[in-house]
Amino acid sequence: MHEREADAQHLRCIYQLIDLQVLNRAVDALPALIESAELMGFCGLNVTHPCKQAVLPLLTELSEEARAIGAVNTVRLAGGRRTGYNTDASGFAESFKRGLAGAAIDRVVQIGAGGAGAATAYALLTLGAGQVTIYDAQPTRAAALVENLRARFAADRLAVAADLGEAIRAARGIVHATPTGTRELPGMPFSADFLRSELWVADIVYFPLRTELLMQAAERGCRILDGGGMAVFQAAAAFEIFTGHEADRERMLQDFRGTPND
Amino acid sequence: MHEREADAQHLRCIYQLIDLQVLNRAVDALPALIESAELMGFCGLNVTHPCKQAVLPLLTELSEEARAIGAVNTVRLAGGRRTGYNTDASGFAESFKRGLAGAAIDRVVQIGAGGAGAATAYALLTLGAGQVTIYDAQPTRAAALVENLRARFAADRLAVAADLGEAIRAARGIVHATPTGTRELPGMPFSADFLRSELWVADIVYFPLRTELLMQAAERGCRILDGGGMAVFQAAAAFEIFTGHEADRERMLQDFRGTPND
Repeated sequence: MHEREADAQHLRCIYQLIDLQVLNRAVDALPALIESAELMGFCGLNVTHPCKQAVLPLLTELSEEARAIGAVNTVRLAGGRRTGYNTDASGFAESFKRGLAGAAIDRVVQIGAGGAGAATAYALLTLGAGQVTIYDAQPTRAAALVENLRARFAADRLAVAADLGEAIRAARGIVHATPTGTRELPGMPFSADFLRSELWVADIVYFPLRTELLMQAAERGCRILDGGGMAVFQAAAAFEIFTGHEADRERMLQDFRGTPND
Repeated sequence: MHEREADAQHLRCIYQLIDLQVLNRAVDALPALIESAELMGFCGLNVTHPCKQAVLPLLTELSEEARAIGAVNTVRLAGGRRTGYNTDASGFAESFKRGLAGAAIDRVVQIGAGGAGAATAYALLTLGAGQVTIYDAQPTRAAALVENLRARFAADRLAVAADLGEAIRAARGIVHATPTGTRELPGMPFSADFLRSELWVADIVYFPLRTELLMQAAERGCRILDGGGMAVFQAAAAFEIFTGHEADRERMLQDFRGTPND
């Protein structure tokens, strides 16, 4: 996406994949990787699972959003400084405003409290969600995220879901922020019995765009939002941070939707 | 040059300057720099002063030319292997054949026994030079280069010049392979009194193309060869090593000559 947008703007750009698995390295290689990127003249990095939180202590400074979210997906490298941003949150918010305009967000359940979940929960709260109830297979992770976001948002706007089914019954919509439903981890993140037509369902997975969850939800008449918009808008914001040039979001969306994906 | 040729071939390419001075590092940073380039997915590096010899122990394997020359200007990185090449030699040979076709090379004096000089001396010998007499301000460097090339060429085809003026008097042509005459180090590498019209003079400096040496030589009626051809042809060969695609040498020459340079 970044390379195609750069091409359209006649900017010379390589968006290089640095894959820990291919390099046969673990998260503890992050300091060396970031230093390498600096030495080799990279102007920035996107950071993804499992490094979105591990990267924090390696940065010089954080944007306000990144600090509140406690996770970084975009690092700007310039003049020896390393500035951490989180464009997942604004990317999700932008996608939500376009794809689920008018959806009720007084009570939202979110599944997943990892790096992406931290960003979507933050986005929901900035969009005005009345209460975001967070469920994670590791309850301590959900509790930690709630705790962290309470530094910035009123305590009663956040809760930990002890029982997912019960939380969904009380909610107007669901945000799914775990890797379940990706090509590597197919399946449903929870029982389809929890779905009912009044719910809206937003998935952050974008490969494939039509996850099992979204297909089941659409079948039951739910409004749905796939992860494509978030993927595009977080990339657009990162592009702007890296290059200093405004990204053409409509062009990037069109490019992304035109790419064979699922 | 590499980027423009890649553009013309519709290859995505960034030729990134990694400058020890800008990074405030010394030659001992080379191991970290090469590892960084590997980690960051670079397919190769050009290596220049003062690293052309220092890089040798860091490589997995050397081309036959690079081994004979004892200096590397091009490193291909692939699958954890680091292969060293020297395209300065073939670059100089190609430039010489085009620009000084028919020039007598039975006795040639070369000034400079550094990394570039090792390549030009090797090139002269492969072009069929009868004897190459090498002068260096550090006589031990000239002796070391002669010694090294004697592993590959007949001993009597190489000599160390004790007295530069005397060596030039006995020669048909001069190859200048030191940085004297560059923007940073302007001036003449030796007294202009040594020049006479029967000599040809080849300079490896290409910034500027018209060095003081070449201007003085042209004034005296010498055939001259600037460093532009060598610069272009070494780049073309490196481009081919990096990309696996044939370089269009005429296009690269034209591009280079069209670039405001001096």
